Amino acid sequence: MRDAYVIGAGQTAFGSFPDESYRSLFATAVERALASADGFDPGAVDEAVVGTLGVGGRQIGLSGPAVTEYAGLSVPTTRVENACAASGYAVRNAVQAVKSGMADVVLAGGFEVMTDVSADAAKYWLGVSGETEWERLTGTTFAGTYAQMASAYLAEYDATVDDLSRAAVKNHANGARNPHAHLGFECSLEEASGGSVVADPLTLYHCCPTSDGAAAVLVASEDVAESDDAARIAGVGAASDRVGVFERDTYTSIPASAAAAEAAYEMADLGPDDVDVAEVHDCFAIAELLAYEDLGFCERGEAAELLRAGVTERDGRLPVNVSGGLKAKGHPIGATGAGQVVELYKQLTGRAGDRQLADVDVGLAHNVGGSGGAAVVTLLEAES
Amino acid sequence: MRDAYVIGAGQTAFGSFPDESYRSLFATAVERALASADGFDPGAVDEAVVGTLGVGGRQIGLSGPAVTEYAGLSVPTTRVENACAASGYAVRNAVQAVKSGMADVVLAGGFEVMTDVSADAAKYWLGVSGETEWERLTGTTFAGTYAQMASAYLAEYDATVDDLSRAAVKNHANGARNPHAHLGFECSLEEASGGSVVADPLTLYHCCPTSDGAAAVLVASEDVAESDDAARIAGVGAASDRVGVFERDTYTSIPASAAAAEAAYEMADLGPDDVDVAEVHDCFAIAELLAYEDLGFCERGEAAELLRAGVTERDGRLPVNVSGGLKAKGHPIGATGAGQVVELYKQLTGRAGDRQLADVDVGLAHNVGGSGGAAVVTLLEAES
Repeated sequence: MRDAYVIGAGQTAFGSFPDESYRSLFATAVERALASADGFDPGAVDEAVVGTLGVGGRQIGLSGPAVTEYAGLSVPTTRVENACAASGYAVRNAVQAVKSGMADVVLAGGFEVMTDVSADAAKYWLGVSGETEWERLTGTTFAGTYAQMASAYLAEYDATVDDLSRAAVKNHANGARNPHAHLGFECSLEEASGGSVVADPLTLYHCCPTSDGAAAVLVASEDVAESDDAARIAGVGAASDRVGVFERDTYTSIPASAAAAEAAYEMADLGPDDVDVAEVHDCFAIAELLAYEDLGFCERGEAAELLRAGVTERDGRLPVNVSGGLKAKGHPIGATGAGQVVELYKQLTGRAGDRQLADVDVGLAHNVGGSGGAAVVTLLEAES
Repeated sequence: MRDAYVIGAGQTAFGSFPDESYRSLFATAVERALASADGFDPGAVDEAVVGTLGVGGRQIGLSGPAVTEYAGLSVPTTRVENACAASGYAVRNAVQAVKSGMADVVLAGGFEVMTDVSADAAKYWLGVSGETEWERLTGTTFAGTYAQMASAYLAEYDATVDDLSRAAVKNHANGARNPHAHLGFECSLEEASGGSVVADPLTLYHCCPTSDGAAAVLVASEDVAESDDAARIAGVGAASDRVGVFERDTYTSIPASAAAAEAAYEMADLGPDDVDVAEVHDCFAIAELLAYEDLGFCERGEAAELLRAGVTERDGRLPVNVSGGLKAKGHPIGATGAGQVVELYKQLTGRAGDRQLADVDVGLAHNVGGSGGAAVVTLLEAES
């Protein structure tokens, strides 16, 4: 198995862009990814893997080829979809394609346009990534399923609504430094805990927005990568689970996240203690707490303590979601996973501008589909 | 790059099954694929790749994990979609996963449930695999785009409506031998050419049905495969193109098919003359004629002559669509590509029952997305 590297990465801002289309957003992300790979010839891209859920139903079939052709890449293109983990899986497929020897350079990316659909349509298009028969069709939304997890967590462990808010406050503070963030403003603990209740105990500040956006990552073989500008994909792990939360054994963990992390750590021969920076899937604040535990950043029930102690602040020992996370950077479903890798690539190659962290060698991206029916964890390592 | 093999394959019948669900159909296909791999332990499946368009919108997100979990496979599952080529691409992804060394055994398959949606819904769900802005939203259907190709072909070359019918008559005759066929009846040349016009010059008999069904293929590394029951995946090629037919340079070829075939032949170090049996994407009769030329079975403009001479009949030199093809076997979108590989696997390992051909060593599967926005060609080789 030859090694795979990220040799370039770029994204659009995440937000609401009524004058853009899914095609134009993706083309911008591709353009930026190619531009970030100094001296790279776009003609050397062998194939593409594109993640999108297809919110809005505008171009459901063949949306992969539709966007790559528009972006000027006439290469075999596969669309992959695992709900909100679509482009995390796209990156994983790109790694497999490169390691297989069937491709030397693969563009992996994703996109979503969500802000131009009605509230009812948004509920449908998000709902179809939850379990259909017993969740969506009975009225359960994602805010509802994550609120169930939050209720269970607060009941089982020494954690409060303020601890959920701490994740949101941190991520908003980080997003305020990110010119690509959808919600680039700060908020206080009081505002977060006192916000309108969306699904008890989750307030508006505990929920990520729906966003438009696109992200793209160039994955290349060791033969193509030049070490200065490249970050090695040390490991990538994936796992699936029952789509319905009620079908699982636990509400206080996302088992697919834990299994995906275990697989990624094993492939990379790394452990949670080696991680210097992480982008985790905080679609709702409780998800960030569960992620800390599922990814091994702390023991079960200790996530709130990590937040209280500031460990995951940008000046802490293990900064999490320095981009702002899904909470503040935004969550254009198909773009989110690739967007996490874009952030890590920038951090590991010293290109993160005002958000640049010092001394980061290993980054972890954690991308969840729906309420945990799928998860993918990617470990990047800086070339030293 | 280690070799990848098909070590088992199975499918449901294609047809209309109001008492089945997408989950139960997929589970049956998986069960049959596993059962066909003598002595194989289902626990040895490392991951799964599932193709579906998601017709009907019942479980659009995470439909991959939803069906594998139901089928009892708790493995990382990725959904891929390239319209009607979804599971052809799933097989290709499985090959990459195996060759990458990240998996030893991958289940690749697909499913679709289409016969329980209204005519309007079917038009929408098929239309979203065509170009959206300038085709679907202006009223163009797939029958319409393929009728444009047929009109152009009949105008440019020495071919007639009866030649289109010859493909349909042959495939219906083949389908009549296939217990899994949706339309397992024979038809005459007169019936085919004289059928109701769907989109001039295409009659009802020139159009495949919409079907329910599922198919699954076990792709394994050379370390797992036992030669007697395995067929080597000698090559697999893919290509994309502009999604709208009007955006391309030609109406008398599907360039993505030609490019995918070229890539597959090159990888396999084989050529069209080596092919003993082929399953081609005859969604409309004209598509089979274009396939003969795009795959190199004859020169441009000579496809009708191949049909007239009986070359592609089941007793001809190069039998095409001995399963009945999309025309008679049926076309449950996400299942079609994997279903083609199921047929080839059976033919190459001597398990095709009444349809068994003598002396077939190399099989070609040709799967097209939409009207040619994507195509994938797979070459299987019997172990001698």
